[in-house]
Amino acid sequence: MTPQPNTAAASLQPGGSKIATYHFNSDNGAPVCDQVMSALMSCNQGTETAYGADRFTMNLAPAYSDYFEREAFVFPVPTGTAGNGLALGAVTPPYGTIFCHESAHIVTTEGGAPEFYSGGCRMTLLPGEHNKITPTDLDKALRKHGIGNVHHMAASAISLTQATEAGAVYRVEELKELSELAHREGLKVHLDGARFSNAIVHLGVTPAEMTWKAGIDILTFGTTKNGTMNAEAVIAFDPEIARVLGFLHKRAGHLFSKMRYMSVQLLSYLENDLWYANALQANQNAVRIASALAQCSDVVLAHPVQINEIFAVLPPRLSIALREKGIHLRPWNLGGNGEGFRLVMSYSDSPEHIQRFEDACREDAAARNVGPQFVTPGTVRPD
Amino acid sequence: MTPQPNTAAASLQPGGSKIATYHFNSDNGAPVCDQVMSALMSCNQGTETAYGADRFTMNLAPAYSDYFEREAFVFPVPTGTAGNGLALGAVTPPYGTIFCHESAHIVTTEGGAPEFYSGGCRMTLLPGEHNKITPTDLDKALRKHGIGNVHHMAASAISLTQATEAGAVYRVEELKELSELAHREGLKVHLDGARFSNAIVHLGVTPAEMTWKAGIDILTFGTTKNGTMNAEAVIAFDPEIARVLGFLHKRAGHLFSKMRYMSVQLLSYLENDLWYANALQANQNAVRIASALAQCSDVVLAHPVQINEIFAVLPPRLSIALREKGIHLRPWNLGGNGEGFRLVMSYSDSPEHIQRFEDACREDAAARNVGPQFVTPGTVRPD
Amino acid sequence: MTPQPNTAAASLQPGGSKIATYHFNSDNGAPVCDQVMSALMSCNQGTETAYGADRFTMNLAPAYSDYFEREAFVFPVPTGTAGNGLALGAVTPPYGTIFCHESAHIVTTEGGAPEFYSGGCRMTLLPGEHNKITPTDLDKALRKHGIGNVHHMAASAISLTQATEAGAVYRVEELKELSELAHREGLKVHLDGARFSNAIVHLGVTPAEMTWKAGIDILTFGTTKNGTMNAEAVIAFDPEIARVLGFLHKRAGHLFSKMRYMSVQLLSYLENDLWYANALQANQNAVRIASALAQCSDVVLAHPVQINEIFAVLPPRLSIALREKGIHLRPWNLGGNGEGFRLVMSYSDSPEHIQRFEDACREDAAARNVGPQFVTPGTVRPD
Amino acid sequence: MTPQPNTAAASLQPGGSKIATYHFNSDNGAPVCDQVMSALMSCNQGTETAYGADRFTMNLAPAYSDYFEREAFVFPVPTGTAGNGLALGAVTPPYGTIFCHESAHIVTTEGGAPEFYSGGCRMTLLPGEHNKITPTDLDKALRKHGIGNVHHMAASAISLTQATEAGAVYRVEELKELSELAHREGLKVHLDGARFSNAIVHLGVTPAEMTWKAGIDILTFGTTKNGTMNAEAVIAFDPEIARVLGFLHKRAGHLFSKMRYMSVQLLSYLENDLWYANALQANQNAVRIASALAQCSDVVLAHPVQINEIFAVLPPRLSIALREKGIHLRPWNLGGNGEGFRLVMSYSDSPEHIQRFEDACREDAAARNVGPQFVTPGTVRPD
Repeated sequence: MTPQPNTAAASLQPGGSKIATYHFNSDNGAPVCDQVMSALMSCNQGTETAYGADRFTMNLAPAYSDYFEREAFVFPVPTGTAGNGLALGAVTPPYGTIFCHESAHIVTTEGGAPEFYSGGCRMTLLPGEHNKITPTDLDKALRKHGIGNVHHMAASAISLTQATEAGAVYRVEELKELSELAHREGLKVHLDGARFSNAIVHLGVTPAEMTWKAGIDILTFGTTKNGTMNAEAVIAFDPEIARVLGFLHKRAGHLFSKMRYMSVQLLSYLENDLWYANALQANQNAVRIASALAQCSDVVLAHPVQINEIFAVLPPRLSIALREKGIHLRPWNLGGNGEGFRLVMSYSDSPEHIQRFEDACREDAAARNVGPQFVTPGTVRPD
Repeated sequence: MTPQPNTAAASLQPGGSKIATYHFNSDNGAPVCDQVMSALMSCNQGTETAYGADRFTMNLAPAYSDYFEREAFVFPVPTGTAGNGLALGAVTPPYGTIFCHESAHIVTTEGGAPEFYSGGCRMTLLPGEHNKITPTDLDKALRKHGIGNVHHMAASAISLTQATEAGAVYRVEELKELSELAHREGLKVHLDGARFSNAIVHLGVTPAEMTWKAGIDILTFGTTKNGTMNAEAVIAFDPEIARVLGFLHKRAGHLFSKMRYMSVQLLSYLENDLWYANALQANQNAVRIASALAQCSDVVLAHPVQINEIFAVLPPRLSIALREKGIHLRPWNLGGNGEGFRLVMSYSDSPEHIQRFEDACREDAAARNVGPQFVTPGTVRPD
Repeated sequence: MTPQPNTAAASLQPGGSKIATYHFNSDNGAPVCDQVMSALMSCNQGTETAYGADRFTMNLAPAYSDYFEREAFVFPVPTGTAGNGLALGAVTPPYGTIFCHESAHIVTTEGGAPEFYSGGCRMTLLPGEHNKITPTDLDKALRKHGIGNVHHMAASAISLTQATEAGAVYRVEELKELSELAHREGLKVHLDGARFSNAIVHLGVTPAEMTWKAGIDILTFGTTKNGTMNAEAVIAFDPEIARVLGFLHKRAGHLFSKMRYMSVQLLSYLENDLWYANALQANQNAVRIASALAQCSDVVLAHPVQINEIFAVLPPRLSIALREKGIHLRPWNLGGNGEGFRLVMSYSDSPEHIQRFEDACREDAAARNVGPQFVTPGTVRPD
Repeated sequence: MTPQPNTAAASLQPGGSKIATYHFNSDNGAPVCDQVMSALMSCNQGTETAYGADRFTMNLAPAYSDYFEREAFVFPVPTGTAGNGLALGAVTPPYGTIFCHESAHIVTTEGGAPEFYSGGCRMTLLPGEHNKITPTDLDKALRKHGIGNVHHMAASAISLTQATEAGAVYRVEELKELSELAHREGLKVHLDGARFSNAIVHLGVTPAEMTWKAGIDILTFGTTKNGTMNAEAVIAFDPEIARVLGFLHKRAGHLFSKMRYMSVQLLSYLENDLWYANALQANQNAVRIASALAQCSDVVLAHPVQINEIFAVLPPRLSIALREKGIHLRPWNLGGNGEGFRLVMSYSDSPEHIQRFEDACREDAAARNVGPQFVTPGTVRPD
């Protein structure tokens, strides 16, 4: 799949380009949810000690240690790219290589953050359906690479994305099998959890079960796509990795002077199970849209719908019908001959637009006498 | 001066250490000001395109081009360390060296950000009173270094801090003279403007006069210490430097997905001359405190009071008197035998505490029959 | 093709492993030729100024400028890996990417030298028969990459290997077409000339025609495989690239203190057309072996024989016959079901072993009544 | 002391600059000694396996393990700069800092090799007479730095030069005390042994006593200044450091394809105690010159004469007298008002020139009626 990132920061084009307004475009486009916004307001009182020695940041480690049922070290960062770079840099020396999927976000659209944060690593690319790598391919790649062969680089880490950029989710058993292969050869295991909560909702497991109990050594914990204001976190379970992270975190400029505004968001995110509620809503929205599409003929899903993402090739008549109802979808190269689109749902999707989407599909199906063909991905147990 | 940074992110000490609560401790400890907080709230409506292609970010370049009276390229970053690293990395190759003051913040307390962002540069350290480097010393250092001598590194940039970490301000003529020396040898000129607005207030010049008109090629523009929520910006005036910045900015993880929340702050900061009003308040608070201290005998100022910082050695009787009024100052190593303190004022200082501080000084002076000895730094024209 | 490098420096295995002694194993295994050894002896008289300011090094630039018919800047290095790293590092910033063949030596067996020397670049891999990339694939890759897209990296250079690791040679027109595509998008063009002379012999063109006249900006000029004692050179034609090279060259530790011993070899290499004579001998040896193999049935060549390398799948009866004559070939994974081997000829191949090889083939052919089927690669004009 | 390196590689100045021919200029200017040249000739027979899997390289580890009385891992490199960079890169992460003397060769004249090989480290500079750092200063610097303070960098290694660039030698007890301080805080200890053998001759201790028995973790072992053809070695005693070195060594391009020519030199260097004999000769030459100078009035030595280096301020009448005998010394900035010179002796110094030097001094002394004032540094036991 060809990545289709947005254009660079507008500051590079002072003239200003016309901005397309798609619907169900990206969970990155959603606003900050009310609970998090309120938390930000409530912490904006009086002075606090800077650089993370404030009362909010002091609570981060306890709160996340509870969440993960194990001592956790928490390093707030503003973006997923920063988080992935930082996490990988902490487990990969400049002469190391990271095994990951050839379409992983760290490969396609992070501008070389792993190379930057590690100081010169390489990514060794693996294939795999729906952006998931398989134990067979990983094992083969490790054997071909040759641990300790200085003509190659030092095999240092694997990076998995949960859920993947294609919206697919690794089962806990798959994570375990991959981690065991990595650990057997001395590699660390990184999880890019940009849509961590959506995957948890899909699998119905605990955060602990999907991370350290499955062999994950270090985690990029995403919250921005699920309701916060640019607040992600790198989470480590090992004190030595945390020691290294401390230096990299400061050095890269992520030790915020007014850290309280990051920490209060990350704390609020756990309160009242906000993380779960928002992800559940987003996944359920995807179920509704996918179910609507299932009624229509000539629709092809490029990937299973397991979280809040749908990759669909639509017949022209349907995309026209949607546009007539004011719904413009974001084109996405899904190969083949049809018109591909990526739809990403969020907790904040407009019910009215979902309704309109459903209407368009129902009308399309009725016009063609196709009966309902519900798909039920999302919150169900792993397939 | 020995730097005395706060301790590392609390996440590294899950047990939690006792946090000292000093007064007039740091402008980093101040809350976000109302105007900026309102702007954040107001932009939290509906979806926006991610990664900087939103309506707010589109306005950044025009707004800052107006502010600087020249086409400006704006790259939002979350911290001053990120900003300095990014700016220096854009003008310094891995084999380059940066000439700067030996006590510059980039040297003492940014964890090696310049080395990280450049990929291996070195900082060549210069002396200078009040953390200001002199044209004489710069010229001498450049000659000793030898432009083009491969046994040394490539002389690539100079970095100046305005105002310096010691609260001193370069006059525009000084900036020009240093820039000319640098440009003559092909070096770029960086300005660390962590307290940019406070310096502007002190000098009474325009942003253009203190930057590109004085030879500054690239700028770290600080707003966090002056009222925003972790929003700094790297500002370039040259399209080729901006092109490089674009790649580094993304690569380091500073191209926020929800960029609108950064951009709206940076826009609000300019509205109603908020930047000036806040800095003026902070500087005036420093004048009040410094004037109060001037009444007392045995007080020594380590540096001139030109912005919102005071470095003072107090007699024990005075620091005791302050503590009795509930004012605990932050100790700072200023050499000598006395008790050194650093006081940093902000727009949000409590009037009550300023009043108490003045009371303590007046009472101390009265008890010792010392008449008023007003000092008037701050908003006055350059000395 | 799976790369099959030798094992790491023996110092890592103090116990010592048994070393296989193959024939026609590698041109890296050949001794230093007499003319070069004599030159080394002859320069070993008295003292010389260190670090390249000696009389021999002073002659390098003039000699190579003559050789290339244009002002050339010469930087001696001890290995091809150092040369490639240095050359690529001079034209690729840390945030840049290099387009090259997926089986290029810089990708498969140089331990990440490009990433190291550039400070964090990435290699974007292209396919292509016989390790040659095609203009079509390069054009497609550049378009997909998107020049200036900050989510990707900065497209900075392409790297071509002449002759390729598969023994194939780009025609001058092919080099030109690839260079033009690169230059059109602002990329620099690097040529890995580990077997530069063998390619020249094959093409029958001048060094100028195969380099800057064909758009090559920077060159790794190999001599070690063709008769010298670990003496390669990075050659640039542009003063600005040379300026950068000067710093990287020193920084990486390649500015030898006793530089005369490097320079005298590089000078001797050009004298009496030694470079051509040695490469011609090696290529002709390959023609003899390939011609011998052509008589035998069931032999498959994986790549055309254009220089001094043969990649052949042999029937077991033939490899047994060769071993009975004392000739053990180096196994090489060429896919398929047969027994693959890589044969690399050098100027110093033992005539006796070539004769034995020919005998074995002739006997095999005679026993199977296959008539002569001469192949004539090598010194002939481009196909 | 201002470093005064030679100019850059002549290739950068194709026009060619006039080269000064000084006497007693540098041990880097000496030719390769006969025994090593013979060894090079003798190994130039037939083919050998490339990349270090040859018969000579196989013997390196055993030979050096004998020499150091402990298992040693040996990595040949072509220059001291490469060796120091490689060694420091193996014990310093990109976010680490190295404590060393402010005039160490790694600081003044290696073009940023430590920053390059580590991927972004910083050197923390210490003062000290004759380029030796003292335990008191190291202890103070470590305390000021604050181990674990993320605002600073990670304290990773110390680097000592034995003998120093000023010709001074650390006593074994001094090495031990410095190593203990470093190890107490978790830092590794590097020894730059560019003139390792000269220091051994001065101290009269064993290689083991001056390295691992004194706490040295990793060593740059210099042989080029003492008779070989650009052959240095990084030597580690710890298998984990050796594992890292293996990757860096290859990655930087120091895994020579024709490694035998490096290894045979390093083996020959130990045979017949060549290393000791050459260094002894060089040190004794320095004693002769220093003794001659001691007869003359108005001569000031800037540093003690302990190895093969003399830093002397001469009265103009004496430098004129030397030039009249055809001896031109290399100027060196030694401060003060006189004419400073650096003299470096080598095993290959011309006896005739030494004699002429002695004659000039004796005549000068006789003309001024100054009696003999012998100094006896060099091979004597440590002061």
